Amino acid sequence: MEIGLIGAGSMGSGIAKTLLRAGHRVTVYNRTRSRAEALRGAGANVVGSVAEACRGEAVLTMLADDAAVESVVFGAGGILASLPRGGLHISLSTISVALSDKLAAEHARAGQEFEAAPVFGRPEAAENGKLFVVAAGPRSAIERSRPLLEALGPKLVVIGERSSMANVVKLSGNFLIASALESLAEAVTFARKSGVDAGAMLDFFTSTMFNAPVYKTYGGLIVEGKHDQVGFALPLGLKDVKLVLQAAEAQVVPMPFASILHDRFLTAMARGNEKNDWSVIARIAAEDAGLARAQHA
Amino acid sequence: MEIGLIGAGSMGSGIAKTLLRAGHRVTVYNRTRSRAEALRGAGANVVGSVAEACRGEAVLTMLADDAAVESVVFGAGGILASLPRGGLHISLSTISVALSDKLAAEHARAGQEFEAAPVFGRPEAAENGKLFVVAAGPRSAIERSRPLLEALGPKLVVIGERSSMANVVKLSGNFLIASALESLAEAVTFARKSGVDAGAMLDFFTSTMFNAPVYKTYGGLIVEGKHDQVGFALPLGLKDVKLVLQAAEAQVVPMPFASILHDRFLTAMARGNEKNDWSVIARIAAEDAGLARAQHA
Amino acid sequence: MEIGLIGAGSMGSGIAKTLLRAGHRVTVYNRTRSRAEALRGAGANVVGSVAEACRGEAVLTMLADDAAVESVVFGAGGILASLPRGGLHISLSTISVALSDKLAAEHARAGQEFEAAPVFGRPEAAENGKLFVVAAGPRSAIERSRPLLEALGPKLVVIGERSSMANVVKLSGNFLIASALESLAEAVTFARKSGVDAGAMLDFFTSTMFNAPVYKTYGGLIVEGKHDQVGFALPLGLKDVKLVLQAAEAQVVPMPFASILHDRFLTAMARGNEKNDWSVIARIAAEDAGLARAQHA
Amino acid sequence: MEIGLIGAGSMGSGIAKTLLRAGHRVTVYNRTRSRAEALRGAGANVVGSVAEACRGEAVLTMLADDAAVESVVFGAGGILASLPRGGLHISLSTISVALSDKLAAEHARAGQEFEAAPVFGRPEAAENGKLFVVAAGPRSAIERSRPLLEALGPKLVVIGERSSMANVVKLSGNFLIASALESLAEAVTFARKSGVDAGAMLDFFTSTMFNAPVYKTYGGLIVEGKHDQVGFALPLGLKDVKLVLQAAEAQVVPMPFASILHDRFLTAMARGNEKNDWSVIARIAAEDAGLARAQHA
Repeated sequence: MEIGLIGAGSMGSGIAKTLLRAGHRVTVYNRTRSRAEALRGAGANVVGSVAEACRGEAVLTMLADDAAVESVVFGAGGILASLPRGGLHISLSTISVALSDKLAAEHARAGQEFEAAPVFGRPEAAENGKLFVVAAGPRSAIERSRPLLEALGPKLVVIGERSSMANVVKLSGNFLIASALESLAEAVTFARKSGVDAGAMLDFFTSTMFNAPVYKTYGGLIVEGKHDQVGFALPLGLKDVKLVLQAAEAQVVPMPFASILHDRFLTAMARGNEKNDWSVIARIAAEDAGLARAQHA
Repeated sequence: MEIGLIGAGSMGSGIAKTLLRAGHRVTVYNRTRSRAEALRGAGANVVGSVAEACRGEAVLTMLADDAAVESVVFGAGGILASLPRGGLHISLSTISVALSDKLAAEHARAGQEFEAAPVFGRPEAAENGKLFVVAAGPRSAIERSRPLLEALGPKLVVIGERSSMANVVKLSGNFLIASALESLAEAVTFARKSGVDAGAMLDFFTSTMFNAPVYKTYGGLIVEGKHDQVGFALPLGLKDVKLVLQAAEAQVVPMPFASILHDRFLTAMARGNEKNDWSVIARIAAEDAGLARAQHA
Repeated sequence: MEIGLIGAGSMGSGIAKTLLRAGHRVTVYNRTRSRAEALRGAGANVVGSVAEACRGEAVLTMLADDAAVESVVFGAGGILASLPRGGLHISLSTISVALSDKLAAEHARAGQEFEAAPVFGRPEAAENGKLFVVAAGPRSAIERSRPLLEALGPKLVVIGERSSMANVVKLSGNFLIASALESLAEAVTFARKSGVDAGAMLDFFTSTMFNAPVYKTYGGLIVEGKHDQVGFALPLGLKDVKLVLQAAEAQVVPMPFASILHDRFLTAMARGNEKNDWSVIARIAAEDAGLARAQHA
Repeated sequence: MEIGLIGAGSMGSGIAKTLLRAGHRVTVYNRTRSRAEALRGAGANVVGSVAEACRGEAVLTMLADDAAVESVVFGAGGILASLPRGGLHISLSTISVALSDKLAAEHARAGQEFEAAPVFGRPEAAENGKLFVVAAGPRSAIERSRPLLEALGPKLVVIGERSSMANVVKLSGNFLIASALESLAEAVTFARKSGVDAGAMLDFFTSTMFNAPVYKTYGGLIVEGKHDQVGFALPLGLKDVKLVLQAAEAQVVPMPFASILHDRFLTAMARGNEKNDWSVIARIAAEDAGLARAQHA
């Protein structure tokens, strides 16, 4: 397919390469142009405006947050103004449920289609076509986007016809991961102060009841205390917990674990970890139990 | 081996059958004798006192809580008084770290050996030799017990020479499971009130990042709202969270998620769920969000 | 002074009467005009537009939330457009820190003055001139407003020159009150289930260490279980906790008690208490402990 | 009256002086004899055994915790063995509900009377006869003790005939104070990071809605960051929260604020504050928000 891609950060760049490898023609726009230029070698066409990225069969956005998405959608020269009638906007970003609903309404009003298709996976997974994708939107939009989304990874699930449902699933997934992080952090700290070899304990768990990628990957990071190689930055973790709490509040759903996580992420930010991976909340658990860095890393 | 087994509840009975099948000679004692008698058909020898169960190469205890273990260990006719010098006591029960330390000290004083080998798994796993076992104790005790523990299931991990280390791992594991329960409960409630098909969402998660037995088993129970088929009863869940908090307090370790779980389990008890499976805390999450039973089951 | 007052809800009406009684000339605007008309008898002038309320020496706003304030400030015919250069806007409402900062900036840009002067007290206190007022804003604005604010009650404190500081104090105060509510609720429930006469216990506390209006008033409501006479409605309580959490997040401040309160208020909403006084969170504490309504009221 | 007093710590010594001043004859026993000897100047008789302190009309115990009380009550030469039939034991200590019930039962079995009369107030209040006392026990015991308890301070409340009810009230009171501490800590931290003068804010609150001793005393300590002059040590605060949670659990009462406090006190202990006043939990709130010591003290 002939498509536009807005956003060439670490996730967007990986996605561009994967789509190009799958035979799609990709026109890339990025605010900081140099990041887009780096994709020329992989076969991307690079443009200098949002409007130019809206001339294909679909435009994909892969951006950091609501504000970034709003800045390229609304206003003169934005996606809404540039996409032709019948055009398709696929949002891969982790955005709020409220913004997803708003985008669906605005695109519909403009005679365009909108679909949310947030992805799970780190930058390497994006580059290697190993992302998990959950999509929601009008049936016709989903069908048109299949060739693209199926290229992104081995698993595509369509969750409903209202685009924001995919965002609810994405936020729920990140909440589950963050909860696993915190529970691992508490368990490892408890074990360590009790004299138990936390690595051996973790090996036991991840080879039995918790034989899953999340526990293996993050359990390892927590036991080793390696939080400076950033797969997903702390401020993004805080942002996502905040989005969960906002969307849950809108549905009048109390979420005690999410509230604890919110406090934890804030504490981690306030104590100077904003440049670390979000798994750094494990360091807070360790420090709150009096473990010095040498002891818990 | 020639061994005694004290405790013929659902877990103990399954273990007896598995050990008999593996060729060990098992003498069973249970306070309510009829439960022990039911094991005669599987080849067990049944006795009427703790002392009679202490005449083999080792005695295993598989009981509900600290009080039950203390009642068969201490006092006239108890294990301490009945086991010969050099005798071995293997505790399979989920008991407190403090009691494990006390048992190690008392048995050592009596010239006996003590080992903690708590198990993970439901009654069916006990009966089918599918338990996961984590053991700790003096090296000689561990070696003597290997033929028994390896018969219980596919995975035996030795975590250290101090018996209570195995109890720390067991409590940590149950804490991780309970945390997974609560996070699933909140995510499913949030998704449901947002109009998302929680079953489809869960299928997505358990076929990707959370592809692990805990999430599959409990996720299914939570989505279906089936909490009356009891694999692990709510009061036992409350007991274990309490043991985690006590042991963590003794090591000066704050555990915010464990605190939330403690409040949740108490709420579930107070609202009349004491005969349900511990996964019933998901019902509390649903009710607190205003979902009536029909909606969340 | 010659002033305008926008907002004739229960608080605004009380304030209008108090200012009229103090000799000020008050022009009232309210979206639902009938509520404003009811103040004619007390001497108020009633107008049909925001602009007409902006012709005096100052305009006061006493509205329910950010959205209500924004709707009368911005746009054609709003306060910003209607107030003359040098005009003064005094916001008595409980609004967000962010909106207060924004109003200060916008009024300054328009050559006008802005001051935040949120008030503590129930409608009776507003009508009887018994409010406590905390004000912040440019010194000249504060001086101009003194005759008005001092008429509102016995206590006026000026907390700084940045208007939003007064909103921080207001939100902090409401947070302290909500925390007192929750702690009373838990203590009363604990005492009751322990067989203790909660009323007698409360009398003891409020005649000794907790000899303060908040504990007396709310302690009484909680012991009696009277939550249907609304002094401050549950949704407003939820709104204020949310504003605290938002403002604290903006300053990177974790607030564990506020997080608990947020979950409590949401639970109370979801369980059907949206028309009750915010002290109804005590009912949640009672129900979570298994106390039926008869027992805890 | 002719009485014995066991425990001459800072609280016990103050109580001894107050009772002596009121004309009672006081025989003091303290494990570390020198602390008792220091009371000779005030007119106390000093003895070297528990038994000798049990020869008057009543014996009072004012000790640190359950273990200390048990050590002087049970066993050979303990209060139970030494007090004559009809003798009266008045426990002023903050002990567990369970121990209070046990003491009532054991004394009754021995034909003796037992009463719990825990006190509120710091050492200075004990010495100056300014304590608040809450008592529970058999009516006859209460009547006999009145001359003593009324001498201790201006306020004596009798809460019931079951001794442990007084302990429930004492624990509830300490929980309310600890909750006030934490809420003040969060509010002050929030205000400070928002640029607000926390001292001025506190003055406003304690001269209006929170015009009560607890808020004035502790608010002042928190604003000044003075936690090294110990009125009530952090480990005692932790102990009391633990007793609240245990007693609440026994009654199946979830207490979310108490759970948070438990985590906070543990964190404060783990971070090296065990020699500080319990108000030091305010330092944890400040540090978790990134305030360095200079900024929050």
